[in-house]
Amino acid sequence: MHAVTYELIKTDEKTKARRGRLHTPHGTIETPVFMPVGTAATVKAMRPEEVKELGASIILSNTYHLYLRPGHELVREAGGLHKFMNWDRAILTDSGGFQVFSLGDLRKISEEGVAFRSHIDGSKHFFTPEKSIEVQNALGSDIIMAFDECAPYPAERDYIKRSLERTTRWLARCKEAHKNTENQSLFGIMQGGMYQDLRYQSAMEIVDLDLPGYAIGGLSVGEPKEVMYEVMDYCVDYLPQNKPRYLMGVGSPDCLFEGVERGIDMFDCVLPTRIARNGMALTSGGRVTIKNAQYERDFSPLDAECDCYTCRNYSRAYLRHLFKSNEILSSMLLTNHNLHFLVKTMERIRTAIEEDRFGEYKKSFFEKYGRF
Amino acid sequence: MHAVTYELIKTDEKTKARRGRLHTPHGTIETPVFMPVGTAATVKAMRPEEVKELGASIILSNTYHLYLRPGHELVREAGGLHKFMNWDRAILTDSGGFQVFSLGDLRKISEEGVAFRSHIDGSKHFFTPEKSIEVQNALGSDIIMAFDECAPYPAERDYIKRSLERTTRWLARCKEAHKNTENQSLFGIMQGGMYQDLRYQSAMEIVDLDLPGYAIGGLSVGEPKEVMYEVMDYCVDYLPQNKPRYLMGVGSPDCLFEGVERGIDMFDCVLPTRIARNGMALTSGGRVTIKNAQYERDFSPLDAECDCYTCRNYSRAYLRHLFKSNEILSSMLLTNHNLHFLVKTMERIRTAIEEDRFGEYKKSFFEKYGRF
Repeated sequence: MHAVTYELIKTDEKTKARRGRLHTPHGTIETPVFMPVGTAATVKAMRPEEVKELGASIILSNTYHLYLRPGHELVREAGGLHKFMNWDRAILTDSGGFQVFSLGDLRKISEEGVAFRSHIDGSKHFFTPEKSIEVQNALGSDIIMAFDECAPYPAERDYIKRSLERTTRWLARCKEAHKNTENQSLFGIMQGGMYQDLRYQSAMEIVDLDLPGYAIGGLSVGEPKEVMYEVMDYCVDYLPQNKPRYLMGVGSPDCLFEGVERGIDMFDCVLPTRIARNGMALTSGGRVTIKNAQYERDFSPLDAECDCYTCRNYSRAYLRHLFKSNEILSSMLLTNHNLHFLVKTMERIRTAIEEDRFGEYKKSFFEKYGRF
Repeated sequence: MHAVTYELIKTDEKTKARRGRLHTPHGTIETPVFMPVGTAATVKAMRPEEVKELGASIILSNTYHLYLRPGHELVREAGGLHKFMNWDRAILTDSGGFQVFSLGDLRKISEEGVAFRSHIDGSKHFFTPEKSIEVQNALGSDIIMAFDECAPYPAERDYIKRSLERTTRWLARCKEAHKNTENQSLFGIMQGGMYQDLRYQSAMEIVDLDLPGYAIGGLSVGEPKEVMYEVMDYCVDYLPQNKPRYLMGVGSPDCLFEGVERGIDMFDCVLPTRIARNGMALTSGGRVTIKNAQYERDFSPLDAECDCYTCRNYSRAYLRHLFKSNEILSSMLLTNHNLHFLVKTMERIRTAIEEDRFGEYKKSFFEKYGRF
């Protein structure tokens, strides 16, 4: 029995969209789900109670960052990540692979693993599949991710093939290294770039390891959205029906709808929290750049259709004032709204799937929101 | 009848410390009281509900800042400062005088008022007593302050005398200009530097105007603390018993105790909020600099004797991690704790006065806290 199990409740009649449930040691997650990102053991600018209040049931935290600061052993001594950061719902940690590979000149890949230098102090480190799992075991997150290579776009077919095969070998090593299967579940990650046969190869290899969940990696890395949607489409078909499917690093409203429509169950993205700190809001009428002069004397809420704390209590004029004054409350209120917006949108998506009207809901959503 | 009235409940048997109550259009304030500062229509890094939850009954906001950004007319259109910032308890606004005089080379004083340039964009402005009151009337704060000159330290006796006399003339103009006496009360400000006879002169002149409250200005401007305490001592004696006394810009724990002991009822200071953002906490055991290496693996709360949200839920190790990672939550949690610490200390001071043991409480507080 895995620590994390997936229960498929219902599939939409007209699309591949599906309604499910993820059972974890820290609660049940209704899927499809959006996971707010809490990189350094905090969802930026939010108290954990506020994240719970807006309905988030699982957050993502970053292994690379926590390994470097404050260090996974310290988090273990603190009683694990949940206790350290005061979050008693589920946590998924990534493997650190994505961040390490993003370091560019600061890292070097071999079969054994990746040598890299810290972006904080330049210190030398070596990450392997075993090390990533050791760190994630120390953190104690409910879902831990395989250490993979997220290949760049565009990339030669040869490179992608060699990379995905190494990712499979690394996955086997991750599975072997995972010491806490009772409380934590390891998800595998499919790679293969934009090549259909390589995606198929990757899927077959990782599904063979019978893990409790699978992610689609290597998307949203610079390719056109149409390409991403096409790849997503066949990737999902290669994955088992009875396991959750997680599309990594994707979270704009259009990608969420397109992903759900293709059978994705889990999403994460820094977008809602990052753009909030830059003064941008996701609203039912599309994106709002709060510093714009048109909001100077706009005493209406950020989103008239929203019932979040921010929209219940503050005007656009006030939010604009806070942003222009570099006030921390600006980040707090906009982050709260943006996360609320995505979490509630996913809630409505789930209801729409239950009621076999996902397509209609998608259409009505974008009639107001527009495309970005 | 003034909008704001003071009720003296009890005077300590051994000191001048007194227990009172300030009745305002936005609730009753138990005194002595510490007022958190919300410079730009926000107590930095705090939701207003959090400020209420920790027990604050009145906050201070800054006329100079709000006049420049977002502009007092905008705040008036928004329905006043309370509504604009979502704070339904009492607000005191300063006059803008202190900030304008702090601009140094950017301002020029005349009998009529002060010409200055904005610290934001260099634009030219002219503040007069009438203008300050107009702005404060637009903001709609419960207590509005007279436009005065806070003279520097040290300063020649002649300069101080001329300055305080102008401050008195400005006070009469403020009183004359004040248009909303039903909902807002104007407090006068005593000046006179460190010269006892000038303090007496200032007091007599302003008390003559029979205002609902009086502040002691021109202290904590660089003079030694012993000098400040000595001046405070005789200043209070020159003010009426039946009016609240407000010591402006003072809020370190030692100054609060020394002020209360000398008969001060109201305090404000940016100290607890500002040092919080710099990673410093006020605790029952003295100041804690959270980034210090000694707290790296300290899994105990910031202050074992504190029951605030921060101390109930987080460890020093976590707070240190947040601060070192430049996380916004660091400012949020430390601000919450520091304000809680001062607000609760004032609560305990009030109880001690009621029970005639203010002196004992002061002694026991500093035995643990030390002197800073």
